[in-house]
Amino acid sequence: MPVYDKFFSSVAKSIKASEIREILAIIRERKDVISLAGGIPDPQTFPREELAEFAKKMIIEMGNQALQYSETKGILEVREMLSHFLLESRGISVDAENIIITTGSQQGLDLIARTFLDPGDIVITENPSYLAALGAFKIRGARLVGIKIDKQGMRTDLLEETVKKLVNEGKKIKFIYTIPVGQNPAGTTMPPDRKKHLIEIANKYDLLVIEDDPYSYFIYDETVDITPLKAYDEEDRVIYMSTISKILAPGLRIGWLACPSGVTRKLELIKQYMDLHTPTLNQFIVAEAIRTGLVSQHAHKLSPFYKKKRDTMLKAIKDYFPENVWYTEPVGGFFVFVYVNKKGFDTGKLLYKAIDKYKVAYVPGKSFHTDGTGENSMRLSFSYPPPDLIEEGIRRIAELIKNE
Amino acid sequence: MPVYDKFFSSVAKSIKASEIREILAIIRERKDVISLAGGIPDPQTFPREELAEFAKKMIIEMGNQALQYSETKGILEVREMLSHFLLESRGISVDAENIIITTGSQQGLDLIARTFLDPGDIVITENPSYLAALGAFKIRGARLVGIKIDKQGMRTDLLEETVKKLVNEGKKIKFIYTIPVGQNPAGTTMPPDRKKHLIEIANKYDLLVIEDDPYSYFIYDETVDITPLKAYDEEDRVIYMSTISKILAPGLRIGWLACPSGVTRKLELIKQYMDLHTPTLNQFIVAEAIRTGLVSQHAHKLSPFYKKKRDTMLKAIKDYFPENVWYTEPVGGFFVFVYVNKKGFDTGKLLYKAIDKYKVAYVPGKSFHTDGTGENSMRLSFSYPPPDLIEEGIRRIAELIKNE
Repeated sequence: MPVYDKFFSSVAKSIKASEIREILAIIRERKDVISLAGGIPDPQTFPREELAEFAKKMIIEMGNQALQYSETKGILEVREMLSHFLLESRGISVDAENIIITTGSQQGLDLIARTFLDPGDIVITENPSYLAALGAFKIRGARLVGIKIDKQGMRTDLLEETVKKLVNEGKKIKFIYTIPVGQNPAGTTMPPDRKKHLIEIANKYDLLVIEDDPYSYFIYDETVDITPLKAYDEEDRVIYMSTISKILAPGLRIGWLACPSGVTRKLELIKQYMDLHTPTLNQFIVAEAIRTGLVSQHAHKLSPFYKKKRDTMLKAIKDYFPENVWYTEPVGGFFVFVYVNKKGFDTGKLLYKAIDKYKVAYVPGKSFHTDGTGENSMRLSFSYPPPDLIEEGIRRIAELIKNE
Repeated sequence: MPVYDKFFSSVAKSIKASEIREILAIIRERKDVISLAGGIPDPQTFPREELAEFAKKMIIEMGNQALQYSETKGILEVREMLSHFLLESRGISVDAENIIITTGSQQGLDLIARTFLDPGDIVITENPSYLAALGAFKIRGARLVGIKIDKQGMRTDLLEETVKKLVNEGKKIKFIYTIPVGQNPAGTTMPPDRKKHLIEIANKYDLLVIEDDPYSYFIYDETVDITPLKAYDEEDRVIYMSTISKILAPGLRIGWLACPSGVTRKLELIKQYMDLHTPTLNQFIVAEAIRTGLVSQHAHKLSPFYKKKRDTMLKAIKDYFPENVWYTEPVGGFFVFVYVNKKGFDTGKLLYKAIDKYKVAYVPGKSFHTDGTGENSMRLSFSYPPPDLIEEGIRRIAELIKNE
C-alpha cells in the first residue's frame, strides 16, 4: 500500500473533521444520550403523503425532464416559480435569470467561497456565526473577522468601525456574511434600522453582502421584522440565499441564490464544475410544493410547533440553570446559545464527559467563533427532541454546569 | 451598481464557458437542428413507472430517513448495497466503509480534484479525454499530460515512456485518470493486457489511478473485456468511480467512488464542505432500483437499444462520409469520435455555420484534447436522436465536411 499523504492537496492536508458531524456520529450509537446537538428538523413535521404524491406525479407526468440532465442554474420553470415566491413572500424582486438552484445551502456557501475568495481575502461575519459557513470560507484560505452580536444581532456600529479600520489599512474585504433573521447559532434578529445600516455600510465601502436566510419562514414572535436585507438592496450588492431544508425537508437538498445580475454567470460557470446541476427530480418536487401552496401552509404550521419546543427549552433553562449562565432567547431558528461564566469551563473538553457521564450532547461553541474565543459557550438545539427530553436534557446540562 | 470584477476569485476570473453547455443552450431553441452534441440518454429508456413507485414507496415507508439529513459518505444501507453490487457485477471488492456516494460523477471528479490537486501538479489522461474531467482538474491548476490512444484505448507503452520521463525530470504526478471501458469521447476499450500494464506502471512509479466507468454496463460487443482496473488493484491505488446516470436516469444525480481505505476519510471531509451529503431520497430510490434488480435488468435492455443507434450512425458514416475522415468504432458509450484530414478544417470555427446553415450540431473536439490539438476533430453522439435523425444528421455532417 502506498503512503497516501504525499498525494493530498494542501487543502486536504490541512482539513479537520467538523465537531458537529463527529458528535452526531457518536450519538447515533448511544440511545441513552439526549442530543441537543445537530440542528435537525423533527421528522414528524415532514409532509410525507404530499411529497410522496408529488414525487410520483412528477416522474409520471414530467419524467422526460425530471429524470434527465438539466440546466446548471436550475430548471427555468422552477426558477420562475421561485422568483414569484420570493416576491410574494419576501418582497424580493429577482428575475428567474438571476436565481441559481443549489444542492442545499451548503453548496451555495461553497459556490460563493470559490467564486469570490482567494487566500488572505477578508470575510466579515457575526461572531458567533454558522459553523459550516465559516468552514466553507476558511478552506478557501479566507481570513475571518467577527463582529460582536447583542440581543438584536450584529452590532452594525462595530461593523462600521471595523470596516473603516480594515479599509484604512488597505485590506481587501470581499463580503459580509450575515444571517439577519433567526441567526445561527444565536437566534437573534436584526431590527430594520440595523439592516438598513448594514446596507449603507456595504454601499459606502463598496462591499458585497451574503444574506443567509434559512429560518425566517417560521418566527416565534409576530412583532419581529422579517424583511430581508435584499429588499433594501438598491445597489445590487446582496446575494440572498435560502433553502427548503427547514421548511419542507433537508433530504431533498434544494437551496437557491438570488443574485445581482453581475455575478450570476460566474456562479453558474463554477457550479457547472461542481455537479453539472442540482438533481432535476428534486427541483420538480419542490416546485410542485411551492405551486400547490404546501410550502406556505407548512411553514405556517411549523411556527407554533417549534415555538412550543423553544418555550420548553427556555422554561427549563430558567428552572434549572444556575445564575452564572448567559443565554439567547431566540425569536427564530432552532437554537439557544449559551455562555457559562465560570473560570476554566471548557465545553469542548467537557463534551465527551457530558455524553458519557451526563448522557447529554451539545455543540461546543468555540468553532462558531471567528477569533478562537467561545470556549465557555455551547449551542443547544430544541428542534429534534420531544418536549420531555428537551426538559430532561437541560436538567442534565445544568448538572454538568454546576458540577464541572 | 458596483464593478463586480474586483470581487471575483482568481479561479472565477479565469473560468470560461464549456462549449458543450453553450451549444446545448443554443440548440434548445432551434427545433430544426439535429443535435449530435450532448451525451444525453434517450428519455424513452427511463423506467418511469418503476421509479415513480420507488420514490413514493421510499417517502411513505422510509420518510423519516429519506427526507432527513444524512451521512456525508452516503446512507450506510445504500453503501452496503453498492458494495454487494460492485462485487457481483464487476468483481470489485470494496467495503461499504470505503464507498462514497456523490452528487453525480461530476461531484466525484471535483471532489477528487480538490482532495489531490495543487496548482502545477501533473495529471495524466487519455488524449482525447472527457471534457468535464479535464475541466475539473484544470480549474484546480493541474497540468494535463495526454497519452495517445489507438483502437484499443490508451497506449500504455507511451504511458510508461511519459511517466518515466516526467519522474526523471523530478515532476510531481498525482494520478492517471482513465476511462478504460467505452471511453469518452473515443468509445475504445482497453484489453486486459493494457489494463494490467497500466496498473504495473502505477505500482512501479507510485501513482494513484482514477478509473471512471460510466459505460461498461452496456457494451455492444460481447467479446469485449469489461473487467475494471480496480479488479487488478492489489496495492490499493485505484479510485473507481461510476454513476447511475447512464444506466438509470441522470436527473437523480447519483454516483459513487470505491476508494482505497487510506483516502476515504479525506474525501469524506472535503465532500462535507461541498454539499453536506448527496440528497437522501435519491440514494434510497437508487438503492431500491438495485435491490429489486431493476438496474441490472435495465442495463441489459440498454445494450441492444443503443447498439442499434450506434450501428445506424456507423452505417451512415460509411455511406456518406468522404475518404479523408478517421473515426472510432465504439464498443461502448454514446460517442463516435471523428478526425477530418483536411487542411484548415476547424470544427470549432465551423460550429455556428454547422448549426445555422447545415442544421446539425456536434461537439468540437479540441476541448477533449490536453495539448491544444484536435481542431479538426468532433464528437458525435448517437444516444438521443431516433435512428432516422441520426442518419440525416450524419448526412448533413458529411455535407459540411465536403463543402467547408
